[in-house]
Amino acid sequence: MLVVSLMRLDDQETRLQEAFPHVDFKFYKHPSQLPEEVHQQMDVLISYHPEVDAAFIENAPNLKWIAWYATGVNRLPFETLKKREIQLTNAGGVHAQQLTEFLFAYILDDYKELKSIYEEQQARIYNHKRVTPSVKGQQILFLGTGKIPQRASQIAKILGMKTIGLNTTGHAAEYFDETYPISERHHVYKEVDIVVNLLPETTDTRYLLTVEDFKAMNQHTLFVNLGRGTIAQESVIVDALKNKSIRKAYLDVFEQEPLESDSELYQLDNVFLTPHISGSHVDNKKLATDIFSNNLKSFLSNGNLIENKVNIDRGY
Amino acid sequence: MLVVSLMRLDDQETRLQEAFPHVDFKFYKHPSQLPEEVHQQMDVLISYHPEVDAAFIENAPNLKWIAWYATGVNRLPFETLKKREIQLTNAGGVHAQQLTEFLFAYILDDYKELKSIYEEQQARIYNHKRVTPSVKGQQILFLGTGKIPQRASQIAKILGMKTIGLNTTGHAAEYFDETYPISERHHVYKEVDIVVNLLPETTDTRYLLTVEDFKAMNQHTLFVNLGRGTIAQESVIVDALKNKSIRKAYLDVFEQEPLESDSELYQLDNVFLTPHISGSHVDNKKLATDIFSNNLKSFLSNGNLIENKVNIDRGY
Repeated sequence: MLVVSLMRLDDQETRLQEAFPHVDFKFYKHPSQLPEEVHQQMDVLISYHPEVDAAFIENAPNLKWIAWYATGVNRLPFETLKKREIQLTNAGGVHAQQLTEFLFAYILDDYKELKSIYEEQQARIYNHKRVTPSVKGQQILFLGTGKIPQRASQIAKILGMKTIGLNTTGHAAEYFDETYPISERHHVYKEVDIVVNLLPETTDTRYLLTVEDFKAMNQHTLFVNLGRGTIAQESVIVDALKNKSIRKAYLDVFEQEPLESDSELYQLDNVFLTPHISGSHVDNKKLATDIFSNNLKSFLSNGNLIENKVNIDRGY
Repeated sequence: MLVVSLMRLDDQETRLQEAFPHVDFKFYKHPSQLPEEVHQQMDVLISYHPEVDAAFIENAPNLKWIAWYATGVNRLPFETLKKREIQLTNAGGVHAQQLTEFLFAYILDDYKELKSIYEEQQARIYNHKRVTPSVKGQQILFLGTGKIPQRASQIAKILGMKTIGLNTTGHAAEYFDETYPISERHHVYKEVDIVVNLLPETTDTRYLLTVEDFKAMNQHTLFVNLGRGTIAQESVIVDALKNKSIRKAYLDVFEQEPLESDSELYQLDNVFLTPHISGSHVDNKKLATDIFSNNLKSFLSNGNLIENKVNIDRGY
């Protein structure tokens, strides 16, 4: 059994080698360092590198399982995986804590007006008259009701917010006060104060949000994108912010990444941009390896994967 | 029964008049507008104005109850209140939500490095390599374990933090993982990452924190003061920040308020200052009037107050 990782896993390498002494592990810093014979022999692949495309997979005839060390799997060649019956797991859930921390950092930065207060501090102005709005009683809408939105909704509820989730069918989900089918979203926008995209990228979600979506939102809406940048064209978001269809946006993901320095987003004063870092954490390799280890144990005994399996037909 | 308010209560005035048709309510914008005969006749006083001092109370021989529309009662002349057996209630708990929102706005602003990220946004730098620390597993120490620290501790725990509370005797308090007597705080500092002061001002807490306290804290400590500015001399906090005894501070209250524009705090780059606004909310008058109404109903029927009674001997 040959397991190849296209990234170094630091102290997790020893952990894996000690836990699975009969498995042959090979760790490379970059796909370019992978020797041809190892490529052809590998049974299991650990990576989240964009070079893992259809050609890469076709050149690995023994490959049975890709352990993707990220949550979004949209870059992978699904047709090839299906044809070859290669199993796929992701690191879904690993990033829930960090994403949730960023979400509430954004929301509280906005509601507690920290930027304006800091500008006054710089000017040595002591403005005791400022009264900031509370998040209590605010309605927050999540596009997506999976692990990460559930974790975020749990915290939103403790903070006194009403939480609404959108998913394919409108099925109930833990920690959500209400859920609706995503097709009914235009009616739901009217009721809410904050809209948070946490959807994965699939053929159904790519460019799901259009000009009509932002027009249907309240003008005081705070829009947060922590899912994928392709949920809407950048120009659509820019126009919504320019025209004040919505009040403000916090964006961690972009239609084109890295964001080009000439992006119009940089010219707006009602947007806060973070460089697709909301899932990054020093412990991510450890947490993703926790999932991988559980799966590898099962895989070695009966060929089955038990955690974080991606349904290739759904795309997440 | 004459109830005098030294502040206008907006739509709460009609609410009180309708709920208590047999009570005579008088509302003034400022103590200076209070006629002498009303002063001498009042039974109940609603205020949080600094002009309510010993002389003011001695000039109100009928006064039986002061409904303080703030949480901190430290400015009031306790000896006079005791001698006259005047009951005192405060607005404790009214500010818990807003204070808690500011606390987590501060902590997440710091841990998610929003200020640095925003500076990069201004420079159009897309720094995808940034990895921010998580609050999960961090230890947070609260000075005080009353209503507001309990609410804050509840949220800290949901975010994955370990919570420790200090109070007079070390008695257990809801939502706290551990509690210790405040006299043992120097040992506790070593274990914690965040120190939050939420103590009221009393003779025991005035200048409680000294140079030794800040020296005993970890150098990576984040210090937050949402209680009262007199917990430490400003010069002690300034020195701790200058000498890097602690890493950073978020301060909403100050030894001298308003903070003078020549305060040394304004010269430091590891402090974030808010102008004693963390308790302010548009709903504060309504919430404080909720407490007042419940108390007035009881007071009219049997002379007893049932909510938010201040123990004058303790001072909170």
